[in-house]
Amino acid sequence: MTTPGPSPSVHVRSAGSALPGEPVDNTALAAALGVNEEWIDVFIGTRTRHFARDLTSGDIRWTLADLCADAAANALESSGTDPAEVEFLVLGTATPDHLMPATVNQVADQLGLDQLPTYQLQSGCAGAVQALSVAQYLIGSGEFTTGLAIGGDVCTKHLDLRRDLSEAAPGDLVNCVLFGDGAGAAVLSSRPSDKDVALRRVLNRCTGLGREPGQIIDWFGLADRDEPRQALIEDYKAIEESVPTMAVEILWELLDSLGWAAGDLDFLLPPQLSGRMTRLITEQLGVPEAREISCVADTGNNGNALPFLQLELLLREMTSGQKALAVAVESSKWIKAGFALEHL
Amino acid sequence: MTTPGPSPSVHVRSAGSALPGEPVDNTALAAALGVNEEWIDVFIGTRTRHFARDLTSGDIRWTLADLCADAAANALESSGTDPAEVEFLVLGTATPDHLMPATVNQVADQLGLDQLPTYQLQSGCAGAVQALSVAQYLIGSGEFTTGLAIGGDVCTKHLDLRRDLSEAAPGDLVNCVLFGDGAGAAVLSSRPSDKDVALRRVLNRCTGLGREPGQIIDWFGLADRDEPRQALIEDYKAIEESVPTMAVEILWELLDSLGWAAGDLDFLLPPQLSGRMTRLITEQLGVPEAREISCVADTGNNGNALPFLQLELLLREMTSGQKALAVAVESSKWIKAGFALEHL
Repeated sequence: MTTPGPSPSVHVRSAGSALPGEPVDNTALAAALGVNEEWIDVFIGTRTRHFARDLTSGDIRWTLADLCADAAANALESSGTDPAEVEFLVLGTATPDHLMPATVNQVADQLGLDQLPTYQLQSGCAGAVQALSVAQYLIGSGEFTTGLAIGGDVCTKHLDLRRDLSEAAPGDLVNCVLFGDGAGAAVLSSRPSDKDVALRRVLNRCTGLGREPGQIIDWFGLADRDEPRQALIEDYKAIEESVPTMAVEILWELLDSLGWAAGDLDFLLPPQLSGRMTRLITEQLGVPEAREISCVADTGNNGNALPFLQLELLLREMTSGQKALAVAVESSKWIKAGFALEHL
Repeated sequence: MTTPGPSPSVHVRSAGSALPGEPVDNTALAAALGVNEEWIDVFIGTRTRHFARDLTSGDIRWTLADLCADAAANALESSGTDPAEVEFLVLGTATPDHLMPATVNQVADQLGLDQLPTYQLQSGCAGAVQALSVAQYLIGSGEFTTGLAIGGDVCTKHLDLRRDLSEAAPGDLVNCVLFGDGAGAAVLSSRPSDKDVALRRVLNRCTGLGREPGQIIDWFGLADRDEPRQALIEDYKAIEESVPTMAVEILWELLDSLGWAAGDLDFLLPPQLSGRMTRLITEQLGVPEAREISCVADTGNNGNALPFLQLELLLREMTSGQKALAVAVESSKWIKAGFALEHL
């Protein structure tokens, strides 16, 4: 690695989010899916989530593009940033509305933006961090002043309300009760807002050599859509074993790279797998003096939205001189991700 | 726009490709699909293409990850670049093997690469140019010396060999005979190889505000896979009307931004939609003194592979002092893309 040259520093001007409809609690989810409510309470530990599809009528009420455009508009409004200042869009998602056009271009359309570069990153929740990373390089190049990083996921296409889950195995069931829908966004700029929050570091690294994926989400085409293969695979034992350890490694790598001590941290944004897993991971991270910023127990696991939802909560609390660190793990192919912020 | 700061220049050390199996000619394709051979000859103008699926047995012989890893290995070998020098991977594709894990991480696995940042861009053929763009920013930041930009597509999941196409409308049929499978890759570095080819400019811009998509490729999930909706939509009249004009605009924008005249160009890499369309577009680009580098009539439209296949052909021909310009148009949401190279 060579030493980075001089480049503009990158600031988070604001963040925003969009969660579809009213929260769906475990009583309603258990009834809609025909599963045991207590099992969701205890095994998942998530209380509510939001869905782009109406669980009663089955109607699709929001696309991913709708939610991402709403989140982006909310983020822009929050710092009074004029949409005309937006020079690029970067979107991270695992569940695009279509394969083509990329959803990010539909988001540009909804925001009234034209003649600008767009990038859409295919990833699980690490995609949100990758979106921050790409935005950081774009602004760092000096070619752009201000842009939007967006993350979101919608599980509508995989949320099969007709399926009988009464006999499903836990490793299959977990996919039906873990997820929710939503989007989040951040306005990034070389020009800080009145609240000057600097993006100090972004980590994005694949560490999966020789390891089986911990999570697979598949898609079907015209030629294979009636194949009976399992489209969602979650090795939750491997996840429970590896993710807490990886989270600790990410935390310390980011701290070391910045010369920060654990005691310097005012806020910790831990990985948001489920209410129960996030509690376990946060305990193991071992920085009790840092205030935890989590949302998954209320929002469900909405993938690439999560780091932006946490960021929105963080920016409301953070004050001058404070430091925050976010940790994200994508168990699909074991991606270490995270970022560090400092309120100047 | 601000002025870019000082940053390392980016060089294309080498390129490589991977096309699955033997070429499939129009006689074989027409027989497999039950369509008219002469119609393919005249209306599409593509002579051969390659498929990851065996048209006779239906067996899947290569995944996208397989082809991308082969292309990347070929690109590395071509310039004698040690795989251990690779510090990042960026992959552009419209047709990932799965939604998660992103295919780029499986490619890393196959190449024996670990502990490095990976990015996968969801896009049509503009994704190949976006991969070059992201690689350029990564190297330009000074944080990385050498990395791989990869592009590829595999139509296996959408290539339904059981379907009766005898009564299909042209706008539907075109999707069955336009595409092929393949991958390409380029080694990019701040350290040139003996053949010093500089990446002078990359253009990536969404220009689709208020316009309907010219092309839609959809995917199915567990909940909607038996819906009868059309998964592939191609507005070939809008494409024939807009793409040649957009190609001319891209050409002139790139030339103007570099202070190059049309007469300075030694090579032209035009958009690769189909044999027939590429001929039409190249005529309208109006730079007959530049030598055309095209491959689509032999490879079929393999999406994100195409710009890398052209790049591989170009690097074999290019000599010191020569200039080349590539033009790509993604009709999905009307993305203008392209890049410029100069052999120093």
